[in-house]
Amino acid sequence: MEKSEISTLNKVVRGAKRALYEREIAYDIIDSHMICHVAYVYEGYAISIPTGYGRSGDMLYLHGSLKNRMLLGILEADKVSVTITHLDGLVLARSVFHHSVNYRSAMVFGKPRVVEDPDEKMKALEVITENFIQGRWQEARTPNDKEFRSTLVIGVSIDQFSAKVRAEGVNDELSDMELDIWAGVVPIHGMYGQPIPEKDLNSAIEAPDSVRNLRKQAPL
Amino acid sequence: MEKSEISTLNKVVRGAKRALYEREIAYDIIDSHMICHVAYVYEGYAISIPTGYGRSGDMLYLHGSLKNRMLLGILEADKVSVTITHLDGLVLARSVFHHSVNYRSAMVFGKPRVVEDPDEKMKALEVITENFIQGRWQEARTPNDKEFRSTLVIGVSIDQFSAKVRAEGVNDELSDMELDIWAGVVPIHGMYGQPIPEKDLNSAIEAPDSVRNLRKQAPL
Repeated sequence: MEKSEISTLNKVVRGAKRALYEREIAYDIIDSHMICHVAYVYEGYAISIPTGYGRSGDMLYLHGSLKNRMLLGILEADKVSVTITHLDGLVLARSVFHHSVNYRSAMVFGKPRVVEDPDEKMKALEVITENFIQGRWQEARTPNDKEFRSTLVIGVSIDQFSAKVRAEGVNDELSDMELDIWAGVVPIHGMYGQPIPEKDLNSAIEAPDSVRNLRKQAPL
Repeated sequence: MEKSEISTLNKVVRGAKRALYEREIAYDIIDSHMICHVAYVYEGYAISIPTGYGRSGDMLYLHGSLKNRMLLGILEADKVSVTITHLDGLVLARSVFHHSVNYRSAMVFGKPRVVEDPDEKMKALEVITENFIQGRWQEARTPNDKEFRSTLVIGVSIDQFSAKVRAEGVNDELSDMELDIWAGVVPIHGMYGQPIPEKDLNSAIEAPDSVRNLRKQAPL
């Protein structure tokens, strides 16, 4: 698998044994979530903002209004970092010290740019929409000129990345193994609830493929 | 309810109508999650790192190893921002443009400091542990001297905060209401799976109260 270039920026120092630089692993983590946290500097302070995203090839797309402070903020940086985090379980050790969580997280570092080309911009909006719910782009009304112009789309080239994964049981001290304390993992996973149609929806309109095909288990 | 002071730092500009500055609302969002994203500046770049936390009064506690790059990084700032995000549902409008998500997010801005006082430090570790799973501190082996000394605990005073909540249905254009397109909300929630005891666990040890009392619904 192709690996990321490793610099001081994306080198995982904390918990380095869980660090992965393979692109496929990072992309799998990215593609199975919907919300990322984008970091940017505002008035000298680092701030982390949740937002939706979509990936196409080695580009990550973000979008928002033309005045979106975070989007305008990241354009001032020559590199932006985007973090995607899945919480997969509680790791309950015999000692408090070895308590942990199972998780998958990916961090992307790349150069942000405004997507000006109309074809790429429309494609990016499709990619973001489809990352939330596959097949929805074909079902819903696509953006008209006014909506299209009032949307800012930013592409982040996935130049560097790292992934961290913990997916294992408890790592207790040998000297604690005989303690009369329960130890194990409690998995956490996301679920979709029953779709709630809009009150004013024509009752003849049934839930479409995109909604019915939502996996029973939401990948979060 | 007590409100946060509002400055350019925590003033919500994007989607301002969803912004809330009441402390109780922000604390409810904080207390019902386990993982936050901490933003810090590293080599000139803003980076967002997921980590556990716990709240006690108006203090947010973070912890890690003594060499944790993120924790050491935030100590260099006079204010750190911490973001907590719940994803609650997909909002599927008739138009792509009005697609959205239901969510609750809180952002805290405060001064970070190393927690040196042993009593406060031990209490902070308890608060963090209990935020993951209530009642666990009393069941598990508490930190010994070596573990205690090798843990860095940082307290962030919750000086300013903001919350953003979207918890409603679809907001379509009036001109789209007659379109033959399904519109509605698909809820998303977290679930705990069946606890998985460690392979080497004495089979006479049953799952304790903390595990059995985990709510059916997990924070995402």
